[in-house]
Amino acid sequence: MPTELPSSEFDARLAAVRDRLAATDADAGVWFGATAIEYLAGFAHVQTERPVVLAVTSGTVALVVPRLERERAAAVPHVDRVETYFDYPDGRPVETAAGVLADLGVGSVAADADGAPGVMGYQGPSLSAFLDVDTQSWVDRMRWAKSDAEIALIRESATWANLGHRRLAEHTEPGAHPATVSQRASMEASQAMLDALGDRYVERVRGDGPVAAGYISGEETRLPHGHTPNERLERGDVVVTGATANVDGYRSELERTMFVGEPTDEQAHLFEVMLEAQTLAIEALGPGVALDYVDDAVDDYLAEQGVADLARHHVGHNIGLGAHEPPYIDAGWSDHCDGDHTDLAPDDATMEPGHVYTVEPGLYTDDAGYRHSDTVAVTDDGTERLTHYPRDLESNVVR
Amino acid sequence: MPTELPSSEFDARLAAVRDRLAATDADAGVWFGATAIEYLAGFAHVQTERPVVLAVTSGTVALVVPRLERERAAAVPHVDRVETYFDYPDGRPVETAAGVLADLGVGSVAADADGAPGVMGYQGPSLSAFLDVDTQSWVDRMRWAKSDAEIALIRESATWANLGHRRLAEHTEPGAHPATVSQRASMEASQAMLDALGDRYVERVRGDGPVAAGYISGEETRLPHGHTPNERLERGDVVVTGATANVDGYRSELERTMFVGEPTDEQAHLFEVMLEAQTLAIEALGPGVALDYVDDAVDDYLAEQGVADLARHHVGHNIGLGAHEPPYIDAGWSDHCDGDHTDLAPDDATMEPGHVYTVEPGLYTDDAGYRHSDTVAVTDDGTERLTHYPRDLESNVVR
Repeated sequence: MPTELPSSEFDARLAAVRDRLAATDADAGVWFGATAIEYLAGFAHVQTERPVVLAVTSGTVALVVPRLERERAAAVPHVDRVETYFDYPDGRPVETAAGVLADLGVGSVAADADGAPGVMGYQGPSLSAFLDVDTQSWVDRMRWAKSDAEIALIRESATWANLGHRRLAEHTEPGAHPATVSQRASMEASQAMLDALGDRYVERVRGDGPVAAGYISGEETRLPHGHTPNERLERGDVVVTGATANVDGYRSELERTMFVGEPTDEQAHLFEVMLEAQTLAIEALGPGVALDYVDDAVDDYLAEQGVADLARHHVGHNIGLGAHEPPYIDAGWSDHCDGDHTDLAPDDATMEPGHVYTVEPGLYTDDAGYRHSDTVAVTDDGTERLTHYPRDLESNVVR
Repeated sequence: MPTELPSSEFDARLAAVRDRLAATDADAGVWFGATAIEYLAGFAHVQTERPVVLAVTSGTVALVVPRLERERAAAVPHVDRVETYFDYPDGRPVETAAGVLADLGVGSVAADADGAPGVMGYQGPSLSAFLDVDTQSWVDRMRWAKSDAEIALIRESATWANLGHRRLAEHTEPGAHPATVSQRASMEASQAMLDALGDRYVERVRGDGPVAAGYISGEETRLPHGHTPNERLERGDVVVTGATANVDGYRSELERTMFVGEPTDEQAHLFEVMLEAQTLAIEALGPGVALDYVDDAVDDYLAEQGVADLARHHVGHNIGLGAHEPPYIDAGWSDHCDGDHTDLAPDDATMEPGHVYTVEPGLYTDDAGYRHSDTVAVTDDGTERLTHYPRDLESNVVR
């Protein structure tokens, strides 16, 4: 039951970016993105108007943080130096980072962006106002392939997502409110996870629990990103669920289409077509498989079934520290990689061991939506389905 | 009990950006940011790797969305034209937007950014690959001053946040788990809000309820952005809460420092110093007041009390559609506005009617943190405190 990333992971990640750095003319790698900083240095924070800057040279890992993060930053084992500014804007965060870089003898950097992201109203100088900046996306690319340790955390997340989903199903009945069912299931599964893991649980959430299980229902399911309506459940409602759990920052994705009471023949038919599309996509996954091949295979099947017009999105995405990560199972992925959009090699258009995909083809009518999502890891010789809640119709009818 | 922004607000906002557009050489204003698009056109969406683009010309409001948002986009009354791409990357979102702009006869734009934000792995061409792009931050600046209708929604949010906070206090007792207390309070207050508002409730959340109330406890309160620990509450614990409710996308912020059982003399003293600092800050707010004046006044008081070293952040921020918005109550705000960072006029360094501030000076020791936060609107002749949970010590001791 691994619930925390081992320290050696960070050593390997820092070594990998130092290798990339050595192949450039830059003196340091610099990151402003919260997820990249968490990935490289193990320092997790909420990205606000207060920039956080990570700098990695051949010899030093330095972190610039607002005063309110000093104690947490100082406790991170992989960081050699923590510099603090009081707050934004008076603390002049990017100027502070430029000062640290100068102090480290850095004249040019390869950065994930030329300055802090403009979130929550941040406006400030670009880093290139102070030194030479080239941009790189090393960490974004490194995150495509997960290590065994990362996949173990996603697998653990799937276990607690499964519990949350079971609680969702148990509390679903005509007259129940979908928001309350969602919140009750999240609370119960979170409490079980916290009590079961005990000291092994890694704190990651704030004023909430680690499991989030919930759903949209009724007509809102027509929209892939619909909202939870203020309407109590009725017999005949379709429900589209989502469940996940936060395990040291990593997550899984589990979604099911459920029926409140017996589905109509049309509902059951669309469910079965969706299920078959998902099955063939899961079976198509594997090392060396082209991403657009899987998306095209689903499209072909839906066209054959006469429901191509009910699709609203591609088949899936990667997942890990981020809720959606590249690469995507999309018809255009190979073109994308060959084209001008990125600096990726054409080889990147294929699935590789360590990729972790959601597989979630969906069908949407004027009345309801039908979508499962499972989280599937690509292995050296095949795949492993990490989410394990039953997918079949009978298991997803609440009577 | 206003729970939805009236349609006239969007007319006024679109008129305002058209006025700004008319003062430039550009043919259209363009936005990629989800909050700006929601603010101008009333189209709310989750920002993912799939870009959404809003274009406003003198005669047309056009929206480019992924296929999965088409139905929701088409239902927005303020949008004249909706163009869809299937998905990212194959649908070539920015190329699609460039095509719509060309079709509208647009040759140059004033945009909030030169392309879609790089969230969730999006990588794509910049807009300037297709036409002339100047950047503007019109909407960011317009959002500083809220209308009466916006403040009414924040006031309504504060009502339901207050209920969530009351439930937090009720469920707090030695032996209770802070995550479970948080989730139970959120569930109960959400259910009350949903049932009380009925048809007036505007769907805004997904697999969850509209009220979020929760806390961090024990040693985690030493960190302003601490996590909820996996430790049950004990007598002597300090708790720092947070409660809000989503009312048509708007939110309030209510935070309290609470004690599980009787506080020690030192705890009570630090609470009272924090409370006095907050009181003087709230009383200092008003139209025409310099933002740094309020931050400095708190700093002076904390220094006088000999606890200046226990401060970790500035006094507050604005709030509305965003959780943190400028301007900030920060010692450097006037310099910031005078300096090179922004194109803001020096007048912008003062509080104006319609600004909605959180007021939240905090003190942090090696053992615990002490912070209240209230949401306060600046009016034509003073202020209105929108959050109304009791602030005094006696009301915040759970016995």
